[in-house]
Order: sequence, then structure tokens, then C-alpha cells
Amino acid sequence: MTPLPPGSVIGILGGGQLGRMLAMAAARLGYRTIVLDPAPDCPARQVATRQIEAAFDDADALDELAATTAVVTYEFENVPVDAARRLSRTVAVLPPPRALEVAQDRVAEKTFINAAGIETARFQAIDSLGDLEAALGSFGGAGLLKTRRLGYDGKGQAMIRDRADAPAALSALGGLDLVLESIVPFEREISVVAARGRDGALAAYDPAENVHRDGILATSLVPARIGPDTAHAARSAAFGLLEALDYVGVIGVEFFVLPGGGLLVNEIAPRVHNSGHWTEAACAVSQFEQHIRAVAGLALGNPARHSDCVMENLIDADIGRLAALAGEAGVIVHHYGKAKTRPGRKMGHFTRIFPRSAPRA
Amino acid sequence: MTPLPPGSVIGILGGGQLGRMLAMAAARLGYRTIVLDPAPDCPARQVATRQIEAAFDDADALDELAATTAVVTYEFENVPVDAARRLSRTVAVLPPPRALEVAQDRVAEKTFINAAGIETARFQAIDSLGDLEAALGSFGGAGLLKTRRLGYDGKGQAMIRDRADAPAALSALGGLDLVLESIVPFEREISVVAARGRDGALAAYDPAENVHRDGILATSLVPARIGPDTAHAARSAAFGLLEALDYVGVIGVEFFVLPGGGLLVNEIAPRVHNSGHWTEAACAVSQFEQHIRAVAGLALGNPARHSDCVMENLIDADIGRLAALAGEAGVIVHHYGKAKTRPGRKMGHFTRIFPRSAPRA
Repeated sequence: MTPLPPGSVIGILGGGQLGRMLAMAAARLGYRTIVLDPAPDCPARQVATRQIEAAFDDADALDELAATTAVVTYEFENVPVDAARRLSRTVAVLPPPRALEVAQDRVAEKTFINAAGIETARFQAIDSLGDLEAALGSFGGAGLLKTRRLGYDGKGQAMIRDRADAPAALSALGGLDLVLESIVPFEREISVVAARGRDGALAAYDPAENVHRDGILATSLVPARIGPDTAHAARSAAFGLLEALDYVGVIGVEFFVLPGGGLLVNEIAPRVHNSGHWTEAACAVSQFEQHIRAVAGLALGNPARHSDCVMENLIDADIGRLAALAGEAGVIVHHYGKAKTRPGRKMGHFTRIFPRSAPRA
Repeated sequence: MTPLPPGSVIGILGGGQLGRMLAMAAARLGYRTIVLDPAPDCPARQVATRQIEAAFDDADALDELAATTAVVTYEFENVPVDAARRLSRTVAVLPPPRALEVAQDRVAEKTFINAAGIETARFQAIDSLGDLEAALGSFGGAGLLKTRRLGYDGKGQAMIRDRADAPAALSALGGLDLVLESIVPFEREISVVAARGRDGALAAYDPAENVHRDGILATSLVPARIGPDTAHAARSAAFGLLEALDYVGVIGVEFFVLPGGGLLVNEIAPRVHNSGHWTEAACAVSQFEQHIRAVAGLALGNPARHSDCVMENLIDADIGRLAALAGEAGVIVHHYGKAKTRPGRKMGHFTRIFPRSAPRA
């Protein structure tokens, strides 16, 4: 397709830090942005051309967004699918709404991933204590119980190591619309941030090795400490998922690395991903620009990294470290413009870059 | 000083591409921006928190800017000095208005540079044909006649190679408030983009080698093809000028490199500089972030480059190359969001990065 001409307007559902970084990347390519978000002082508003301040299911607001933009994208996977489908009647919505449907329900997600020939942990839909007891029986008496929908940053989860804890875990999570996942004895967690263009072109950044703390991403290390076969398999899996979804844009795919180097997909995020923030510091084209390029029909950028790096999130009061970090050589800081700290709230991040450990590809 | 806390508002006089890139850099550090510019759809407006749409000498607008910002900076050297002085009665204006005064008048500029112990081409203030003929006599019969004020991108200049052309050149440039500069047989042109913090710290990016076409910067190559002594001397001269001005912020210093490696300063720009655009692609901290860091009282960033590079301006219809350039590996593109092309108008730029030719310092 012909790329969107500069000056075109891109709509973004969601005005958090991901929407903010997408809006800045769009500006660098000459595009304008309209962000739809209910929060009056959302982070993206400060850098977007305009905000429509409305709920994500406000039909008038959605129609206004569709009427004023050339393409609409989103920064989070919990955009109502109905909203995406309403928009898609009159404007291109990318990634396709189907990716939202798949990513919003952990059972649909894992079923889809397995159908694409890619392994996940074993899982079982849970809607009763009977379901849970049967599943625990087949998973060796332990498992991770999760809500099927709306979980993020470790919320909506309960680890069950003893069958006696099953009733309490079940009721803590509402008793219905849950999934039990088998416990994976993983060696490390990695993720691949990959992209597919409107022309079907594929590009993947190098896998990042991620460490979570209290269920929230703490650090991403690049290159990940994995062998080339594992890196290749992770990249191939991400490409397989992009093609199976007829996807356009950036996707984040999280993996467990098993002893021996095998991989299981943990989850997919149909959007730019926290574990890809390092790309703004260590690559010519960041994941944010890559996403905008994809949805705008521009060529994808080369995902090669020019530096090794480690990205660290600044959560809550950690943001107070920003000024000191800015004084360190080779550190790139990023503040999201949020006025108030809160436990678990992502306020910013920084990336420390190092000369590459191996020659550039 | 204590750095400005995130959420603080930085005022920017001028809403062109430099103001736009400053506003984006400020956002990444968590600052908000208000841009003062008379143009209703200026490039910076699209990414700034707000625009005050007014002339640079509008007293009410200036007072509003002063009342709503923690510090005011500027993106171009032709901001009226009176406006800067008015602002500085109630808000910090950085770089100091004195730098504007010096940079706005080519005679004051060269006089100041020489007084700081740094060489320039020979020059003579010209206010009459008698002045011009006398100066041509002492410069060997040739020289470059320029307006003292408001010249940029090669405008307001006339090359005189024959004394017979003196009267025509003089009248073409208005006959008054001119300066004749001796013609310098330079080997190449370089520039140093350097910064001084509120704490007096100094930092300089590697010199760029610049090629101009029709008086407008066409390309900047880094590293410049100069020896280490020349690079060291250029950096020292930039630092000397920063200190002599008690400067805070980023400055651009243009030099002629003579056969043998000697240097003459051509001119200084008290702002971020077109020949420093490569820093956004090849350094951890760009010149735009460096400037914001300086005026906000944050530590200066490390100016080391992680890659070699060449930056090229996209002038007028050249902007049509953007989509094709975006498809090349290792190319970082930047569009300024201007709706209309015009002969000589800077519409965007791109930087091609390469692995470093020498180990990182």
C-alpha cells in the first residue's frame, strides 16, 4: 500500500505511557495524533496533537475518532473489542481487532497459540471447584490460577501449591471465568518484540531477558543469556503468531525458557511492550516508531541493535532516582509525565547502554 | 542548583523544528512546554503542551509566558533582545540574553570572539562605499560582504571578487550596517555543538564536518576528517566561548579549517544547531535533551557517540524521499510536521549510522 502521507492523523486508543511514546514516534515521522482516553491529564495528551476525553465505549467519541483519523491503533489489550469493531466499520484499525479478542482471554489466547503449533504451559478453563480439583489432579496437585480476563502486572493470580488451598484461591478470584495453568520450572523469562508491516514484512528485535518483581517487569537485559537456537526459535514463534493473526504492528511475545533451552509462550500483548523500551536507546528505530511505521504502511525499520543494554523500570517513588541517573554516562532516562506516584505505578524507565559484545549483524 | 522537578513548565521562544525537537526532549524528561510563536500551525505546537500564539515582541504574551513557566529558552538567535530582557526580570532566561546580543550582530560577534582569544576571519564594519573600498584594499581586493544582522542560510551576503563590483554589492545589501569579511581559503568546515550546565560543567559532541549547498547546510559527517589536534582546538575554543558568555545551554560553533589544520571561528549560534541533529541518532543523549538538561539544571549527558554517522537535510521537495529512506537499514528519519514545501525550506533530515571506526572513549 501507499504509505500514509505526512500530516495524516493517527488515532490512538489509550493515553498512558505507551500511547505517549507512540505519539512522539508518530510526530518524528510527520504524523499527527489524536488520543482517546477518559483521563483528563493522561500522559499522551501532553505530546499528542489532541485528546478526545471520553470512555472507550463512548459511541459518539469513537465515531468522532473514526471520522478524523486515517488509521486507529491502541496502546493496551483491554480496549473493548466492540469499540474496535465499531471503529473498523469506517476506519482501518490495526492491529486487527481479532488480536484483541485473542489476547483478552487467556483460554482463547493459549488455544490460539497451540493451534498455531506453538507450545504453552498446560492449561484448563475453570468455572467451578470441581473443574479446579480435576485440573489440579492432572497437573500434579499444583498450578497457577488466573482470571481469564483483565489481568496485568501480576494482578488476578493465585499460586496453588496445595490442594487444600483450592477453595480459597477460587473464591478470591471470583469462582468463574478462570484458568489454571501448570507450573513451569523455567530457567529464565525472555520476550521478543516483533513487527509485521502492511506488506507482510517481518522484523524482530533481539530477545530481551526479563526479570519481574511483584509481578511487574523490573529489568530487561539485551542480549538475553540464551543460545542461538533458543533465540532463533523465539523469533520464529513470534513470526508464526504474527502471520496466524494477519497482524499489522508491533507485538510482544513472552516466553519461559526451560532447562535445555526449550520454550513455552507465556502470553502475547498485541501492542508495544514494556520489555521493548530498550529499543529507543539501543536501536536506530524504536519499537514505537516500528509500530507507527507498520500501521502507517511505511517500510519496517532494521531492528539491529547498535549497543548492548539493560532497561530498568522506575516504579512509584523510584522515579526520584531520575535526576541522579541522568548524570551517569551511557544512561538514557525517560519520564512519563505522570504527576502522582502510586504503589506499582510505572513512572518512567532508564536504559544503560554498553558497546556491543558481538559484531553487528 | 536543584534540578527543576518533573512536571515543571519550560517556555520556548520559537516554534520551528528546533523548538519542536526541544519540546519532545523536554517531554521525555517529564517537563511540559509552552511555545511562544506567531504562526498558528507551527511545528512545535503539535508536540508541545501548549502554544501562545503571539508575536515575539507582544508584551502581554511575554508576561503570560513568564508567569506560567519555570525557565524560558529559545530556538533561534533573532529573538528580540528586549523580549529576552523583559522576560528575565521575572523568570530565568537561558542561554543568557547577552548571548543573543553577541550573536545578532556579526561585528559584535567577531569582536567578542577575538576578545576571548579566538581567531576569526579579518573583518571590517561597513557603512559606506568609502568604508568598503578601504576594507577591500586591506583585504587584497576581495571579501564577503554581509548584513550585520538577520542573515541566515546564506541570505544577506554578496561575494566581491573585483573592486568594480563593490558599489552594486553595497546597494544590494542596503548600504548600511554591513560587515566585510576577508575570504578564507578553507579546506573544510566543521562545527562543535557544546553545552554548559547551570553548575558550570562542560560537554562537547565530536566535531561534525559540514557541507553547505546554496548557503544551506546539506550534510554533516561524524567523525570529521580532521586530526586530533584540530579536534581538540575546536573543542577548547567552544568551551572558551561558553565560559566567556557565562552560558547555560547548547551552543553551535562553526569553524573554517585551514590548510595545516588551523581554525577560524565562522559564527556562533546560541541554540541547538542543525549540524548537531546527528546526535539524536548516534549518541545516548541528543543535543535537544542536552539543552533541556542544561537549562533545567540537570546533569549534562555524556556526549560520546556510539556510532559514526552522516546527517543529511531534506530541503523542500527532498522530503518526498522520506518513505524510501525509512526503508534503508541504519537510517533514522525525522519529519518536522510542516504542511507546505518551499524553496530552501528545511522539511526534515535523516541520519545514516555505521559501526564506530574507533573504539569508544
